[in-house]
Amino acid sequence: MSNQNTQLLTALNWRYATKVFDANKKIPADVWQTLEQSLVLTPTSYGLQPYKFLVINDPAKRAELLPHSWNQHQVVDASHFVVFTARTEMKEADVDKLIKRTTDLRRLPAGALNAYRGMMLSNVVNGPRGKIAHEWATRQAYIALGNLMTCAAVLGVDACPMEGLNPPEYDKILNLAGSGYATVMACALGYRAAEDKNASLAKVRYETKDLVQYV
Amino acid sequence: MSNQNTQLLTALNWRYATKVFDANKKIPADVWQTLEQSLVLTPTSYGLQPYKFLVINDPAKRAELLPHSWNQHQVVDASHFVVFTARTEMKEADVDKLIKRTTDLRRLPAGALNAYRGMMLSNVVNGPRGKIAHEWATRQAYIALGNLMTCAAVLGVDACPMEGLNPPEYDKILNLAGSGYATVMACALGYRAAEDKNASLAKVRYETKDLVQYV
Repeated sequence: MSNQNTQLLTALNWRYATKVFDANKKIPADVWQTLEQSLVLTPTSYGLQPYKFLVINDPAKRAELLPHSWNQHQVVDASHFVVFTARTEMKEADVDKLIKRTTDLRRLPAGALNAYRGMMLSNVVNGPRGKIAHEWATRQAYIALGNLMTCAAVLGVDACPMEGLNPPEYDKILNLAGSGYATVMACALGYRAAEDKNASLAKVRYETKDLVQYV
Repeated sequence: MSNQNTQLLTALNWRYATKVFDANKKIPADVWQTLEQSLVLTPTSYGLQPYKFLVINDPAKRAELLPHSWNQHQVVDASHFVVFTARTEMKEADVDKLIKRTTDLRRLPAGALNAYRGMMLSNVVNGPRGKIAHEWATRQAYIALGNLMTCAAVLGVDACPMEGLNPPEYDKILNLAGSGYATVMACALGYRAAEDKNASLAKVRYETKDLVQYV
């Protein structure tokens, strides 16, 4: 197996859901910039990017979020704490925003993407995915979460994904009412503390043949 | 910026939703083995892994799936085609399967994880996530999708995530009725064809300040 394959598998095996972060160890600026860009570069359905990532740097805000996070101390101890929010509904303006951005970046004539625009509208706004818009947007946020955790592992940064939080309380603390976005989950990032015993536990996955089947 | 950061960002910028695959180029066995393990190593809520990945190698099956995939030729042309399925409901047996696996792998005494078992049952089986079990399982599958696409990019493998398919028709063709799993989306993997013009188009993402906000 090539060096590249081995390196990647080593990173994926090294990572675990970090329960205790070293509160004194911060992610260096250049590494954080890479992780921030990994979020931005996440692939999404139609490229619609129906989410925002809130990085909570204010210690007072983190302390406020803690009791609404099953008191998991990763919220206050991790170097970085990212709250993933997703669009609560999808409107024509969401589609037009992407059309404008694409037209600008690719220097297309106005109207060049009208067919694509219609296709998106008939699905994510007025069609089947429009009916489950927040859930559909949430799924895209989970792609970003998967991408972020893998990138963190590759860069030797520890992470803890967190579904264990109270989204409505998060929304209140983060003033999301009326913003068109709602909290879906979070991810703490930083470096494991020496005392986190979870780091040395055997990784638990089902056997490959139980998870991957060939047809 | 360190070499590692630059390499990762180069990989993420290199990737795009590949529309035309080179049907003659296959992913080498050692690279595929790494991608398969990346799926297996995906982090999930509680570690419950509520999904199965079906790799469709049979050309006849691929041809059958094509008309139910908006006729996107990636389905038949890509080296590998992975259908992501997620648990349709979560039962006590799902939790017990994980408890047994954990107890075995970590050589714990029977009953050592009773509290953890109760916590899972009161959430993903009998509690709030139990009520949306298939959707919750689907979100975990999207973590796997994000992880897989990033790993593929790191290894120089092209990918195309696909929500544009008809899950009930997939379920029929793949005989998933009664299996406890249902199709949620798919991902084609392989190598871009020289004629895929999408490869050279400017990547469209919103500005970082619109996607990432600091609180």
